[in-house]
Amino acid sequence: MLARTFIERKRDGGRLTKDEWRALSAAYLSGEMADYQMSAFLMAAFLNGLDEAETHALTQTMLESGDTMRLAHLGLPTVDKHSTGGVGDKVSLILAPLVAACGVAVPMMSGRGLGHTGGTLDKLESIPGFRTGMSLARATAQLEQLGCVMIGQSDEIAPLDRRLYALRDATATVEAVPFIASSIMSKKLAEDLTGLVLDIKQGSGAFIPGEEQGLELARTMIALGELHDCPVVALLTAMDRPLGHACGNALEVEEAIHALRGEGPSDLMEVTYALAAEMLLLAGAEGDRAAALERLEHAISSGDAARHFQRVIEAQDGNPGVVDDPAALPQAPASAVFASSDSGVVLEVNPRAVGLGVISMGGGRTRMDSQLDPAVGFVITAKPGMAVRAGEPLATVHASDDSGLERGMQVLGNAIRVGEPADAADVLPLIGWRVTSAGAERCDS
Amino acid sequence: MLARTFIERKRDGGRLTKDEWRALSAAYLSGEMADYQMSAFLMAAFLNGLDEAETHALTQTMLESGDTMRLAHLGLPTVDKHSTGGVGDKVSLILAPLVAACGVAVPMMSGRGLGHTGGTLDKLESIPGFRTGMSLARATAQLEQLGCVMIGQSDEIAPLDRRLYALRDATATVEAVPFIASSIMSKKLAEDLTGLVLDIKQGSGAFIPGEEQGLELARTMIALGELHDCPVVALLTAMDRPLGHACGNALEVEEAIHALRGEGPSDLMEVTYALAAEMLLLAGAEGDRAAALERLEHAISSGDAARHFQRVIEAQDGNPGVVDDPAALPQAPASAVFASSDSGVVLEVNPRAVGLGVISMGGGRTRMDSQLDPAVGFVITAKPGMAVRAGEPLATVHASDDSGLERGMQVLGNAIRVGEPADAADVLPLIGWRVTSAGAERCDS
Repeated sequence: MLARTFIERKRDGGRLTKDEWRALSAAYLSGEMADYQMSAFLMAAFLNGLDEAETHALTQTMLESGDTMRLAHLGLPTVDKHSTGGVGDKVSLILAPLVAACGVAVPMMSGRGLGHTGGTLDKLESIPGFRTGMSLARATAQLEQLGCVMIGQSDEIAPLDRRLYALRDATATVEAVPFIASSIMSKKLAEDLTGLVLDIKQGSGAFIPGEEQGLELARTMIALGELHDCPVVALLTAMDRPLGHACGNALEVEEAIHALRGEGPSDLMEVTYALAAEMLLLAGAEGDRAAALERLEHAISSGDAARHFQRVIEAQDGNPGVVDDPAALPQAPASAVFASSDSGVVLEVNPRAVGLGVISMGGGRTRMDSQLDPAVGFVITAKPGMAVRAGEPLATVHASDDSGLERGMQVLGNAIRVGEPADAADVLPLIGWRVTSAGAERCDS
Repeated sequence: MLARTFIERKRDGGRLTKDEWRALSAAYLSGEMADYQMSAFLMAAFLNGLDEAETHALTQTMLESGDTMRLAHLGLPTVDKHSTGGVGDKVSLILAPLVAACGVAVPMMSGRGLGHTGGTLDKLESIPGFRTGMSLARATAQLEQLGCVMIGQSDEIAPLDRRLYALRDATATVEAVPFIASSIMSKKLAEDLTGLVLDIKQGSGAFIPGEEQGLELARTMIALGELHDCPVVALLTAMDRPLGHACGNALEVEEAIHALRGEGPSDLMEVTYALAAEMLLLAGAEGDRAAALERLEHAISSGDAARHFQRVIEAQDGNPGVVDDPAALPQAPASAVFASSDSGVVLEVNPRAVGLGVISMGGGRTRMDSQLDPAVGFVITAKPGMAVRAGEPLATVHASDDSGLERGMQVLGNAIRVGEPADAADVLPLIGWRVTSAGAERCDS
C-alpha cells in the first residue's frame, strides 16, 4: 500500500519527506516492499529527480539503516578515497596499501561492478582465497594491526545502500547525481573518517560524462560531507579512455601489483599519486604536496607499499604469493594479439565499449546474481594520440575460449579507432579540476 | 544485458521494434530478465510512452506468448465483455449467465483486482469452492455444455500479459492507454470471439478518468480488433460513483445474485442490459436493440439467467446453494451502519476512496501475493443527488474486527460528502458514449 503510494507520488513528479524516506527504507528492508516495487520507484525517481532535501534525506536514511565504524581509539588519522567508477580504474588497489604505508589508516570500503565499469571487490576476489566480506569488528581489528583493510559493504554498513546499489545496476538506473552522491556518502560517512578524497571521472566512459554535472556531483558530496564534519576534496579525472592498460579483474590486479613496485603505466601512476597526496594532506600527515609526493614515492621505491598489500592479502585469506608472482592469479586459457589494421594515429580507445566488452566476455555481471570469470579482459597499450603502424600490436585479448576471443577482437575493433592525425580530437587532461569546500580550481595536468 | 539495454532505451525515450518486443518477452518468460528489471522497464514505458506500432507489437507478442481457444465447432456465436475496471462493478457476474441464457456462448475470461478496483476472479472465488483456474480444454468442454464459463487467464493464454498485469498492479504502472489496451486485447483475441463489447469506465474512479482518453482507448482497441477480424463495440459508462450498492468481493456476488433475479439496483441493471444488448447484436442473436432487451428481460424474469449462474457455479466446483441462499457466502463478523451526520444532498460518493478502503480493510491486494478477506466491504445505498437527513443510514460497513470497522467508518466519512443542493456537481450520464468502427456517438442515458 505504502510502496504503491510512494511509487505513484514519484511517478507523478512529487517529493517524499524525510519521514517518508525512512518509511520507504523500513518497508523495503523488512520485505514489505518488494525488489520489483523498489526498481519501479527508482526508475520514477531517476526520470523525475530528487531535490536537495530529498538527496540529504536519502543519504541519512541509508547511513542510519546500518551501523558505523568507531575508530577514535586507533590514534591515527583515517582517510578513504572513492571513485565514481571507470574502466581500467584499479587505483584503489594501489592507493590503500600505499597510503597505509605512509602511516595513515585506510578503511577502504568498495563496491562491485556497476553498469559498464568494473568494481574493486570483483578485482580483489580474483586473488585466490581473498575474502572481502567481514564483520566491522574484524575489519577494525585489522585496521588497528595493519593500518589497512579492503572490504565490501557488510550487512552492518548502510544495508539499504547495498541493496539499492545492486538493484540500480541491474535496472539501468545508475547515472543520476542524487543516487550516486547519496550512495557514496552514506557508505563513506559510516567509516568515521578524518577526511575523504573523491575521484570523479569525466568523459565518455564516466557515468556522468559532462564537466558541469561532475562539478555538481562534487559540490553535492562536499556539502553532504560538511553536514557530517567530514572534509571532502574531489579531483575530476579523465575517463575518455581507459586508465592504465589492463581492463578485466585479475588483469587489473596484476597491473596494480606492478604499479606498487613502481612499474605501472604513467597515467595510472599520475592519478594514483595525485589522489594519494590529497589523502596525506587531509590526514595532516604532510604539510604540503611536494613533501607528500616524496613520501609516497619512497613508500613505493622502498617496497613498503607492495609489502603492505601482501600483508593485507594474507590477513584477508588471499594468496600473498601473487605479489611476488602475478602468474598465481587466474589466467585465461585463450589469448590473442589485436593489431592495428591501419597506419596513423590512435584517435580513440572507447572506454564504454571496452567495459561492456569485458562484461560480454563473462568478466562482469548481467544480473544481480551473475557469476564472473575473473581472468578475461584486455591489456590495451594503445592510447589516444599515439602514432601506430599497420600490423603493430595495440592490445591483447584474454578469453575463456575461442568464441570469447573472437568476441574480444570484435569489441576492440569497434572500441579502438586509428586515423589521420588531423582527425585527432582533444583528450581530457588527466586531472582536470580540484574541488574543495573553498571552490573549484582548474588543474590542467 | 539485453534487459538493461531495453530498459535504457525506454528510459531515454527510444522505441523497440517488433522483434525486440518478442526478444523482451522471451527474456522475461525464461527468467533471464527478472521481475525487478521488467518493473523498471514498465515505469520507463509508463512515463515515456509507447507509440501505435509498439502497442500493436506488444499486443501481438502477448497473444503469441500463449495458446488460443478454438471454438468454431460449437456452432454458436461467441461474445465476451471487458470492463476497464471500477468500484462496485460486478456486471460480469450477471452478464455472462444472462447472455448465455439467450443462446450465445460466453467464454468470460477475467482478471484480479488492479489498483483501487476489484476483480471478477476475486469476487467469484468468494463463492465457497469456486475454481477460476482450469485448462483451455476443460473450459471449452464446459462452454460446449453450458454456453458459459468464467475463468482466469490460464498459463496457456497470454502468459506474458498475466505476469505483467500482476506486476503493473504492484508497481503503480496501471493507468496508461497502451498498457491497458494491449492487455485487454491480447487476452480477448485469444478467445476466438465473434465480437467483443468493451465497458470503458469514466470519471474519478476510472483508471482513465477523462473522456478524451477514454475515447482514445476505445479507438485503440477497436483498431486492434479490426486487425484480427474481431468487431469491437465500446460503451463509455459512469464511474464517478460506485456502480450498484455493494463494494467488496462476497457482497458483490450477493448483489449480482439479486440482479439475476431482477432485484438489482437500477443503475446496475441499466448498465448490464445495455452491455448485454450489444453482445446479442454482435452475436446476431437479435436484429435490433428493442428485441434484444425484451429477450434479456425474459431471461431474468423466467429464472433462466439465475439457473445458468447456478449451473456454472456447480460446474466450477462452487457451492450452487449461494444462488438460493446468499447467506452461504462468507460473512464478515462485524458490521455497523454509517449514518449521515448532516441533512442535505449527497454531493459525492468517491469511488477511489471506497475502493482503496476495501483494500485497506483486507479485501484487496497490497502485494502480488497478498491474501484476501472476501467478506469485508461496504453496501452503500447513498447516490449522488439523493436528499438525506441527519441520522439517516447511508451505508453498512462489513469488517473482520472492530478496528476494521473503525477504519471502514473513517473511509466512508471521507468518501461520502453531504452538503447544500446548490453545491451539487453534475454527475456523469450512466452511459455516455457508444463507439464502433463507424465512429463515436453520444448516448445521454
